[in-house]
Amino acid sequence: MARVLVIGGDAAGMTAAAGLRRTLPTEHEVVVLERGEWTSYSACGIPYWVAGDVEDVDALVARSPERHRANGIDLRTGTAAVAIDLDAREVETDGGERLGFDALVVATGAEPLRPDLPGIDGQGILGVQTLGDGQDVIDALADEPQHVVVVGSGYVGLEMAEAFVVRGIPTTVVEKAPVPLGILEPRLGERVAEAMRARGIELRTEAEVEGFELDDAGHVRGVVVDGATLPADLVVLGLGVRARSDLAAAAGLPTGVKGGLVTDSRQRVVGADRVWAAGDCVETRDRTTGLPIHLPLGTHANKQGMVVADDVAAVLLGRTTSLTFPGVVQTAITKFCALEISRTGLGEQQARDAGLDPVVVSIETSSRAGYMPDAGQLTVVMVVDRGTRRVVGVQIVGTENAGLRIDSAAVVVTAGMTADEVVMLDLAYAPPFASVWSPVQVAARAAVKALDS
Amino acid sequence: MARVLVIGGDAAGMTAAAGLRRTLPTEHEVVVLERGEWTSYSACGIPYWVAGDVEDVDALVARSPERHRANGIDLRTGTAAVAIDLDAREVETDGGERLGFDALVVATGAEPLRPDLPGIDGQGILGVQTLGDGQDVIDALADEPQHVVVVGSGYVGLEMAEAFVVRGIPTTVVEKAPVPLGILEPRLGERVAEAMRARGIELRTEAEVEGFELDDAGHVRGVVVDGATLPADLVVLGLGVRARSDLAAAAGLPTGVKGGLVTDSRQRVVGADRVWAAGDCVETRDRTTGLPIHLPLGTHANKQGMVVADDVAAVLLGRTTSLTFPGVVQTAITKFCALEISRTGLGEQQARDAGLDPVVVSIETSSRAGYMPDAGQLTVVMVVDRGTRRVVGVQIVGTENAGLRIDSAAVVVTAGMTADEVVMLDLAYAPPFASVWSPVQVAARAAVKALDS
Repeated sequence: MARVLVIGGDAAGMTAAAGLRRTLPTEHEVVVLERGEWTSYSACGIPYWVAGDVEDVDALVARSPERHRANGIDLRTGTAAVAIDLDAREVETDGGERLGFDALVVATGAEPLRPDLPGIDGQGILGVQTLGDGQDVIDALADEPQHVVVVGSGYVGLEMAEAFVVRGIPTTVVEKAPVPLGILEPRLGERVAEAMRARGIELRTEAEVEGFELDDAGHVRGVVVDGATLPADLVVLGLGVRARSDLAAAAGLPTGVKGGLVTDSRQRVVGADRVWAAGDCVETRDRTTGLPIHLPLGTHANKQGMVVADDVAAVLLGRTTSLTFPGVVQTAITKFCALEISRTGLGEQQARDAGLDPVVVSIETSSRAGYMPDAGQLTVVMVVDRGTRRVVGVQIVGTENAGLRIDSAAVVVTAGMTADEVVMLDLAYAPPFASVWSPVQVAARAAVKALDS
Repeated sequence: MARVLVIGGDAAGMTAAAGLRRTLPTEHEVVVLERGEWTSYSACGIPYWVAGDVEDVDALVARSPERHRANGIDLRTGTAAVAIDLDAREVETDGGERLGFDALVVATGAEPLRPDLPGIDGQGILGVQTLGDGQDVIDALADEPQHVVVVGSGYVGLEMAEAFVVRGIPTTVVEKAPVPLGILEPRLGERVAEAMRARGIELRTEAEVEGFELDDAGHVRGVVVDGATLPADLVVLGLGVRARSDLAAAAGLPTGVKGGLVTDSRQRVVGADRVWAAGDCVETRDRTTGLPIHLPLGTHANKQGMVVADDVAAVLLGRTTSLTFPGVVQTAITKFCALEISRTGLGEQQARDAGLDPVVVSIETSSRAGYMPDAGQLTVVMVVDRGTRRVVGVQIVGTENAGLRIDSAAVVVTAGMTADEVVMLDLAYAPPFASVWSPVQVAARAAVKALDS
């Protein structure tokens, strides 16, 4: 009999554990160590819990510890791994236990960036990554905060700002860059900025947070921005996350340029024996450029967890592996109130950094046939590579029906189609859904024109 | 100087004419014959005009005759071509004029099928293909019809039935098949049937129309269905259309098994010299099977018109052609009230007919993360080929945000991706838009499971 030991009980870890439990004969053990009390939860749902759309935290839990245990997984919540001994093939827990393993799965996730600024450790300055973090925000709301400051305007910052606006709490967003949402081209970031301001958010761009003022009890009361103090009794950090790879790195497992663990396409940690890693703690590759990227999203964590389950079972049972994780094309979607925002592939600068010669076009078009009532406007930015004419990136901002159009673009980028090929795609047309040229094709036509001019 | 003569002034013809007018030096003539009074209009918008969503017929006209003329096109509305003489290279009009051409573009469109049944020529029995047809329906509404019968339940029938329901007119839909909307797999047709009945439509399936009863003035008063008469003072025919290829066929131009003109990928009519054809009057090819298909949709007409403009200019000016029309993947989208309906690629029977070995799966999933308010249900049917594991068809029925997901599937089918590849695509995920596995991927996972079992 063999023991599979999984460190981390969210999307990647529990997908791997559950998959293995289904596959492995019962004489094999699947043990999971989870430092928190929740498993298999949707961190992406936290903003909607804070906004009040989701009433109960349990709704965000796809599968509870009890259910996992009932399925035969030896799940130890409230138990942190504190050291990995690759030679002894043991993991030490914070309870002092040493657990041997035949296969190790590292799924330790990511943690919000907390800049090393004066006052950063004050009460009421919260990151948003785990359900515990979300609970802290919910608890803080009970004190009826009068001023919330969100530091950073990535999608977590944006979604949290939306949640506070929905709750009617005066909200300031502080962003270093000239426009919010750095995953977008700046011209689209401008549209997001307009939408934020229209909903009453005070958006401070090109603004630098210098520290936090605390009251005598150690609770935040202000955020120092460019020398002046913004009142704040709740601060949410939306500065992004870093791979939680320290534990594995301390054991000698390799981390890459993006700070995540380095794996092959079967999620085996490079250079290690029978050690896998998956989810927010690993870095992966962009499918277009082949370059490493850290992209901590639940959708990748799930897929990588599936791949781990498949490969660990193959190794333990002497079977052939069939699944591999092919990397990502950086697809993302979010919304701010009625404004839908999505992207896939490379932005202009990313394309340039990858050695491509990007041609960038931007078009405005209608979400339905122009003569239909309620036709909304949307903007599509398309990045094509001059040499190959391939579509390497698409970004969309607009109302109703705008966001999910990115999925077709994600497949286009994955397949390596040219702008010319996109023009001739057979995409869905009917007056309630699109003009006779779908928005992505309107952009492709503009790209062809730009390439040929 | 050369003369390009275009027969037909809707999407295909006017796209070709306008493209040529922009490209050709002014000494070349572009002449268009249009039997009706409108040009460049959206026949797809007619149901929304009838429903009252679109107030004015002019809204459905993308470019009026006046604007085309102002752009330098010699556009002759109210002028029908009655004969083509390929040897003399002349077209004869219903006014008796004989017009010579150096290049001929046939864009004569399609016409609604009118079954040869007793009473079919009665007043108040209307097809829906041109704006003139739409105007006839609008005019008929002024007489406040008490009972409308829609014969056939393709998407035109369905959309017209929706329009009458929106207007509060008692509506019966008569369909030969066991379920409506034959472009769908029957299990999805059932969902459409439920939605129709829930909105008060009397849906008669497996029902055969035997004739029409007319009053003394020759106006329809009933539809004879399986021996009984349904009262009707307005009948709309939604039995599909046929390519209007008779004029061209009479001149010796080739029509194919689907009744449309046969062209190559540059839209040149096969075997003819300097004759092109585009739009609803041609047949094209399915990109997956290579088999001929007649698919009269505005989106194809526009693209084919573009290809014609490019190729005619290339021939007349001695340049190289760059555009070709690659065929279709049978993508279609429509809605019935809140129910969105879409498809792409092959259905099960189509796959079998093409010599594939189809494996068909059907899944139900949520349009948003399951914990979000207003998460709608949707059903995805996926058809994969057992041998190659390729996804060859996808169909989706569901509420909010369901329909346009078909675009990603259309690109998948076009690119020839396997179900395994679809599982690992990087599609958009965020709680307001999808579960962590997008619906198309949920179906792909089911397909992989079915393939491996």
